[in-house]
Amino acid sequence: MRTSIATVSLSGPLTEKLGAAARAGFDGVEIFENDLLAAPIGPEEIRARAADLGLAIDLYQPLRDVEAVPEDVFARNLRRAEHKFRLMRRLGADTVLVCSSVSPLAPDDDALTADQLRRLAELAAEHGVKVAYEALAWGRRVNTYDHAWRIVEAADHPALGVCLDSFHILAKGSDPKGIEDIPGGKIFFLQLADAPPMAMDVLQWSRHYRCFPGQGGLDVAGLVRHVLRAGYEGPLSLEVFNDVFRQADAGRTAVDAQRSLRLLQEAVGTDAPPPPVVPAGIAFAELVTPDTEPLTALLGALGFTRTARHRGKPVELWQQGEARVLLNTAPAEGREGRGPELAAVGLESPDPSGAARRAEAMLAPVLPRRRAPGDAPLDAVAAPDGTELFFVATDTTGTEGWLADFTPLGPGGTADGGAGIRRVDHLALTQPWHRFDEAALFHRGVLGLRPQESVDVADPYGLLRSRAVTSPDGGVRIVLSVGPAPSDDRTAHAQHIALATDDLVATARRIRAAGGRLLAVPANYHEDLAARFDLTPDELETYRELGILYDRDAHGAFLHCYTETVGRVFFEVVQRAAYRGYGAANAPVRLAAQHAGRLIG
Amino acid sequence: MRTSIATVSLSGPLTEKLGAAARAGFDGVEIFENDLLAAPIGPEEIRARAADLGLAIDLYQPLRDVEAVPEDVFARNLRRAEHKFRLMRRLGADTVLVCSSVSPLAPDDDALTADQLRRLAELAAEHGVKVAYEALAWGRRVNTYDHAWRIVEAADHPALGVCLDSFHILAKGSDPKGIEDIPGGKIFFLQLADAPPMAMDVLQWSRHYRCFPGQGGLDVAGLVRHVLRAGYEGPLSLEVFNDVFRQADAGRTAVDAQRSLRLLQEAVGTDAPPPPVVPAGIAFAELVTPDTEPLTALLGALGFTRTARHRGKPVELWQQGEARVLLNTAPAEGREGRGPELAAVGLESPDPSGAARRAEAMLAPVLPRRRAPGDAPLDAVAAPDGTELFFVATDTTGTEGWLADFTPLGPGGTADGGAGIRRVDHLALTQPWHRFDEAALFHRGVLGLRPQESVDVADPYGLLRSRAVTSPDGGVRIVLSVGPAPSDDRTAHAQHIALATDDLVATARRIRAAGGRLLAVPANYHEDLAARFDLTPDELETYRELGILYDRDAHGAFLHCYTETVGRVFFEVVQRAAYRGYGAANAPVRLAAQHAGRLIG
Repeated sequence: MRTSIATVSLSGPLTEKLGAAARAGFDGVEIFENDLLAAPIGPEEIRARAADLGLAIDLYQPLRDVEAVPEDVFARNLRRAEHKFRLMRRLGADTVLVCSSVSPLAPDDDALTADQLRRLAELAAEHGVKVAYEALAWGRRVNTYDHAWRIVEAADHPALGVCLDSFHILAKGSDPKGIEDIPGGKIFFLQLADAPPMAMDVLQWSRHYRCFPGQGGLDVAGLVRHVLRAGYEGPLSLEVFNDVFRQADAGRTAVDAQRSLRLLQEAVGTDAPPPPVVPAGIAFAELVTPDTEPLTALLGALGFTRTARHRGKPVELWQQGEARVLLNTAPAEGREGRGPELAAVGLESPDPSGAARRAEAMLAPVLPRRRAPGDAPLDAVAAPDGTELFFVATDTTGTEGWLADFTPLGPGGTADGGAGIRRVDHLALTQPWHRFDEAALFHRGVLGLRPQESVDVADPYGLLRSRAVTSPDGGVRIVLSVGPAPSDDRTAHAQHIALATDDLVATARRIRAAGGRLLAVPANYHEDLAARFDLTPDELETYRELGILYDRDAHGAFLHCYTETVGRVFFEVVQRAAYRGYGAANAPVRLAAQHAGRLIG
Repeated sequence: MRTSIATVSLSGPLTEKLGAAARAGFDGVEIFENDLLAAPIGPEEIRARAADLGLAIDLYQPLRDVEAVPEDVFARNLRRAEHKFRLMRRLGADTVLVCSSVSPLAPDDDALTADQLRRLAELAAEHGVKVAYEALAWGRRVNTYDHAWRIVEAADHPALGVCLDSFHILAKGSDPKGIEDIPGGKIFFLQLADAPPMAMDVLQWSRHYRCFPGQGGLDVAGLVRHVLRAGYEGPLSLEVFNDVFRQADAGRTAVDAQRSLRLLQEAVGTDAPPPPVVPAGIAFAELVTPDTEPLTALLGALGFTRTARHRGKPVELWQQGEARVLLNTAPAEGREGRGPELAAVGLESPDPSGAARRAEAMLAPVLPRRRAPGDAPLDAVAAPDGTELFFVATDTTGTEGWLADFTPLGPGGTADGGAGIRRVDHLALTQPWHRFDEAALFHRGVLGLRPQESVDVADPYGLLRSRAVTSPDGGVRIVLSVGPAPSDDRTAHAQHIALATDDLVATARRIRAAGGRLLAVPANYHEDLAARFDLTPDELETYRELGILYDRDAHGAFLHCYTETVGRVFFEVVQRAAYRGYGAANAPVRLAAQHAGRLIG
């Protein structure tokens, strides 16, 4: 189907919005009146620019408070509308959005509304324009789609139809099934927006919190199915505005928007992109660092062994159980002066090239397959936060795939024993503030991971939001988090690698014995544990001594502790049986301890 | 009355919170459990630190979901509570907050709740602790203060009373008059918070939007009067958290908090600070600039005349009608490398020293009275955004007051004629993001100005919020605004000085003829004006030619245009008859035009 986006969904001046929409693959735009008013070029030039970019102007929006007014006011409204119809001819837009009246003066008179809309449509038709009438969820009288349709039906004019908006329909709790009773030809336009579940005045909700389909909690796909069954043949058009997009780069937002429509089309069956290939595990985490020293000491204390070295690049492989960490000391452009950080993740994939095809179809930026001559070709894409995601099928014999690029370091470098680390439990990646919703949709749509509930966590200097995306069996768990203030600096908060052990106390003791420095947790925290859980004095004393935090859910217990932070990276070691969370209840204490920076011993 | 503040209201680690509360003049604190858990020092040391700072620990908070549970759960809860009572003894806190249960399992049984609270109080009493029971607005069953009181009355234990919280009471729409039926001695604690009017789930509203009394829309003072009539003798304690304070500097927030309580006490009559002295007009606006050149050219084109020069400093006085602009080229610390900006405002005051006494009582930072030997002494304070506010009584003969520090430049420097500018219409000052609510309360409490409604304005890169504070006769109008993203950089957006004329078309022509550069407004905007208002083609053509924007309210028309921006400053010229606003409807077009940076001619 054709895809369209309202210019109000993108930041910046109109010409940049048009360019961003075209580059992201949209077929058309809705032009928001204020964007036109503020543009330094006239309607004809806007039309020409859009045409050069291959964009239709699918809708001009909106006319407000036109109908259900006294006759003298309506006469003025018709005059105003005629100005707009002439403008639309110059712009090359043939459909205008008319919103249901929000005026407290609008009389309760459907016949009057129908009559005025018919006269408006008559005037529109004279200018070659069609009128799409939309029920705003906060319209004074007309605020449901079926009410709008009854009026359009009564007005009975070929140039008058309805505009359906998923937000207005679903936010009001209307049943979208009735859409199928509207003749498809009378649905002149379809606007799509999602929104997170919030108990809030619907106007505030709409103005500040709309998001792209799949990023919120509304069943937008279900609604679209009804609209398609009704016989609608126009574009799928996004009309989404919120406090985040207004500040974010238009190009990135347009890609996020187009990706949401591709997923929506897959869901409703109007498109069949390559299917998602869900990763089975974390093959490796790659840290880039100007020098290896502080990290090798820390990895050594954590029980990792340096097992191999890249044939052509300054990259070391450190391993313990199934946990693999790459240390990359190659200088990288744009990273000058920055400390160690988590730059890439290897995702164990049952079908790496299938995963890459899916990613490309979902607009993930594809990275060059070969980084250097001689390297094994690798499928990789960039996540919204810039993390490089490699799709790999690890061949542990090292004869092919990414491991074949590494030379084993011989028997001294075996990876058994260590400190009891089994595998990577999860990765925690701080997201750029403006891309948090995009990141969740990306990980779902591109990788086939499942987003979990979003949680707020109190840091001493602001609320962090955090949301895990996981594979069905928990083999891949990535915790996406975002700081309290708009910033595109993904390094403002640290990233971390959480490692799994079956016996955290033993592992922590091994780490300390090997000189590893663990985060000190305040004694007050452990006193409170005694009040909250049935733990023995010995257990409490051990946890206090080792800086171990404790939580429990309906499925089991969770023990975790933290290393010192090196650059923008630290490690967590966790022991979970069937526990499903990430210790969010302990996060405020952990964050405060990290701000304080005290280490044990 | 004694004043207290909850540690959750302030950012950072506990020790910094205590210091900030003490420095702002609070007598006590409520210690929030998570702050204690995260503190690296134990209860005894916290107690000692607070005592050293002269702070009592008025409340420990909270115990949650204690009551209305099955007997086995209650036994566990009592054990947990006893841990906390012991902790409180070490902390030196004698009152614990117990919130009404939010558990969906809580049975509908007041007798059970009363019985369990009585047993909790009995245990508390053994440890010298009192229990203050509070109805959360989202409590499962007990969510009104009168319900909480009925239960406390039925439980009938000397160590059990109620805690009243203005947010929970007023957000639910309860009538606070019934508070007077509660014996004062049974009101163990009073927590105060305000909130802006928002139609939103009360839990979200509470978590993210509370503000200090006087910063929102709840009648906190009215509630306090009822509490005082009931005979309450405890502290006035602030429990306010929102997404802004969590990120803001604790010291500044504590001063803002204490100021709100001083205003509250003035309102309820428990304190009588010096009365506000409302300024009558803008005596001058002072621009600091590294060099005079671009500004003198602009002021000259605007019809200003250089009329005097400061006797001892590189400061020039430019005047036209009653509008006076000071140009200060003295180098100032911290301003190196910055362009021109609005640094100080002279407020015409009927009683400058009275205004200064009021400001000091309301915790405005008082600036040195004499800047240099030989200067006339001047009363001045710093506004939350750093703008210096001078309280002056201008003696236009120049024989005393601030004008006496200036040497007139003789007959060539008379200030009549010019371009028709009469006076300063308003000043627009961008506020640091974290201080927007503080700024409105400051201008009300310190200066006696009246805050108007807050409005959102769409900039191409985010929503701006804007709120005017005005004197009753409009002699002083200051528009406070704030950008979309948290930033303490007040210079991220430009400030401006709006000048009043009686004939904007004539003034704008004079400005252009004198070489002044006015902001170009897109032709699309003026086409739209033709659709919206009955303006003649000549008028429209003139407005287009001069970049004049037009608005109208129920009281009259408003014409305005803008100069180029120099550094962080630009000028607006306005013609208003009885119109009451600031042209907010035109702000999106103006902001887009400023981003585009196109000037006429």
